[in-house]
Amino acid sequence: MSEGVIERYASERERLNEIVMKYAGTSIKRFYGLDARVYRDGALPRKTKELLGLVASLVLRCDDCIKYHTIGCHESGVEDAELEEAISIGLVVGGSITIPHLRRALEAWDELRADAGVDD
Amino acid sequence: MSEGVIERYASERERLNEIVMKYAGTSIKRFYGLDARVYRDGALPRKTKELLGLVASLVLRCDDCIKYHTIGCHESGVEDAELEEAISIGLVVGGSITIPHLRRALEAWDELRADAGVDD
Amino acid sequence: MSEGVIERYASERERLNEIVMKYAGTSIKRFYGLDARVYRDGALPRKTKELLGLVASLVLRCDDCIKYHTIGCHESGVEDAELEEAISIGLVVGGSITIPHLRRALEAWDELRADAGVDD
Amino acid sequence: MSEGVIERYASERERLNEIVMKYAGTSIKRFYGLDARVYRDGALPRKTKELLGLVASLVLRCDDCIKYHTIGCHESGVEDAELEEAISIGLVVGGSITIPHLRRALEAWDELRADAGVDD
Amino acid sequence: MSEGVIERYASERERLNEIVMKYAGTSIKRFYGLDARVYRDGALPRKTKELLGLVASLVLRCDDCIKYHTIGCHESGVEDAELEEAISIGLVVGGSITIPHLRRALEAWDELRADAGVDD
Amino acid sequence: MSEGVIERYASERERLNEIVMKYAGTSIKRFYGLDARVYRDGALPRKTKELLGLVASLVLRCDDCIKYHTIGCHESGVEDAELEEAISIGLVVGGSITIPHLRRALEAWDELRADAGVDD
Repeated sequence: MSEGVIERYASERERLNEIVMKYAGTSIKRFYGLDARVYRDGALPRKTKELLGLVASLVLRCDDCIKYHTIGCHESGVEDAELEEAISIGLVVGGSITIPHLRRALEAWDELRADAGVDD
Repeated sequence: MSEGVIERYASERERLNEIVMKYAGTSIKRFYGLDARVYRDGALPRKTKELLGLVASLVLRCDDCIKYHTIGCHESGVEDAELEEAISIGLVVGGSITIPHLRRALEAWDELRADAGVDD
Repeated sequence: MSEGVIERYASERERLNEIVMKYAGTSIKRFYGLDARVYRDGALPRKTKELLGLVASLVLRCDDCIKYHTIGCHESGVEDAELEEAISIGLVVGGSITIPHLRRALEAWDELRADAGVDD
Repeated sequence: MSEGVIERYASERERLNEIVMKYAGTSIKRFYGLDARVYRDGALPRKTKELLGLVASLVLRCDDCIKYHTIGCHESGVEDAELEEAISIGLVVGGSITIPHLRRALEAWDELRADAGVDD
Repeated sequence: MSEGVIERYASERERLNEIVMKYAGTSIKRFYGLDARVYRDGALPRKTKELLGLVASLVLRCDDCIKYHTIGCHESGVEDAELEEAISIGLVVGGSITIPHLRRALEAWDELRADAGVDD
Repeated sequence: MSEGVIERYASERERLNEIVMKYAGTSIKRFYGLDARVYRDGALPRKTKELLGLVASLVLRCDDCIKYHTIGCHESGVEDAELEEAISIGLVVGGSITIPHLRRALEAWDELRADAGVDD
């Protein structure tokens, strides 16, 4: 089987983060730490936080960030109907300009479900 | 006591929506309907949806939308620590450019809590 | 009668443009010239160009730019139904985050019509 | 002849919309309906509406949306000089950050004209 | 003399930051620390960093952030011609949609110069 | 050796600019002239202006513009630590949504340094 969108994203991200770390000083490193921190379980569970990250990424229209949080949603147990409702909010807030991005979000989600062996 | 930020926002919004309805055709009316629809309880509870609306509004930096969802968060039982964590995600995703807006989000939140008689 | 939104916008704009011209060098002046140039009658009539400027300003959510092109639409003979359809496109493309701005666009439009003595 | 940018865009869009429809609930479907509705002939002709959609997409810098409305402009009889003037407005409103996108808009336009057998 | 734009901005910012600190947890506090850190003298002098912050704020069109960095530019010794050139870059990159914001940037700058007793 | 990101970007840009020039009228041409003009040595040196262009492009998240100014930074003698500090400002102002773009900025930078035979 050919490499999927998730695998391609993940290996490219790893390759480029190595280059980032070659140049990153204290501020960039601290930002990376903060970025990891805010999605951890707290007063809100990680699952809700991944949905927040996904909708923020959708309205700001960043495909890589959308993939990152689609994976996070999948890992933290988000279900199809929950993802669809979160995406609907992103679509209504952000408008039709988000449609190409929600297409790719659902492509990634569909692949994650298939890889996990979910029956349709 | 002088009129607070919530009251000023709500009365201005009502006044202007009357003007909108004077001109609105089918498409604008359907959009308004859709906009109300996506925040109702479903697979995700309204509370989570208001947090999604708040973070989307924060990263897109719209003060009126932020006030709207801050009120929605308050009405649906969001607690201080939950709001703060959602705002932290918006801040990290959207950057320091969101800071003036999170200030005003917390000003509105603080007023809503005071009006509700919450002890600090 | 108290000063309307159009008059307040226009006098503030004039006051601030004087400050801009105190500091502006060649590049800023050329940009201002180019900005005036693109809305003139050409292959497309000024009316269509003002609608393009309005929708661009609406999806980018700039209230001052929206007022500027709402005035331009009024001056170039845009009718209520045409304005409403252009705004609907801006709303669908840009999402609910544009709603506070379309409210203020229609407030300005309503005032321009009233000042022109249009019967409802 | 190798597949052009329009064909590649259209087939990818179709493939992904099938995935969207697998997950879409009522809100997403209604949004899609509204999105189709606002570009139909009305007080403003479809041609003007496609230009509005194009300029909105250009200033928001979404290549897929730009391709969608470039095709719509071509289908509704927009001429070269009209497209160029609309793009100039998008460039002036949105700035040099739109240049990579207007390049790709004109690449798509050039291909649509060539496919239609327009003489240069 | 009536209160100027700088004084109004500064006192409002202080008032609201007190509310932020009432609710802020570790992530928001760390972000504030990081935000202060990146503008300090380093390989690039603070003056250049304030210009970077100003142009970033201008193209993202945040009036409060623009005021913050206009003050920072003034404090770190930026001269009129340098500010004008930085603003020209922001205008060309970000387009005419930044014009209302550059007007207010230059209003703030003009006030800072007047308060400092600079001769015109 | 396979073609790098810089070479691919530059040849694609050249190919597309030829199509732009086939359609461009006076306004687009003047904008291109203005765009070249603002980065020339003046009160601020070109090096600072390229950093301003880079940070503006980073917070607006345009990969092509980022590559353009990364090349400009390299040509005008920006050093690693200076680039890193400018990027840190873009990251803090624009948030984690800029991370995929700063990754690609540093990939381009790394390639430019390697091509120039810089020792690590």
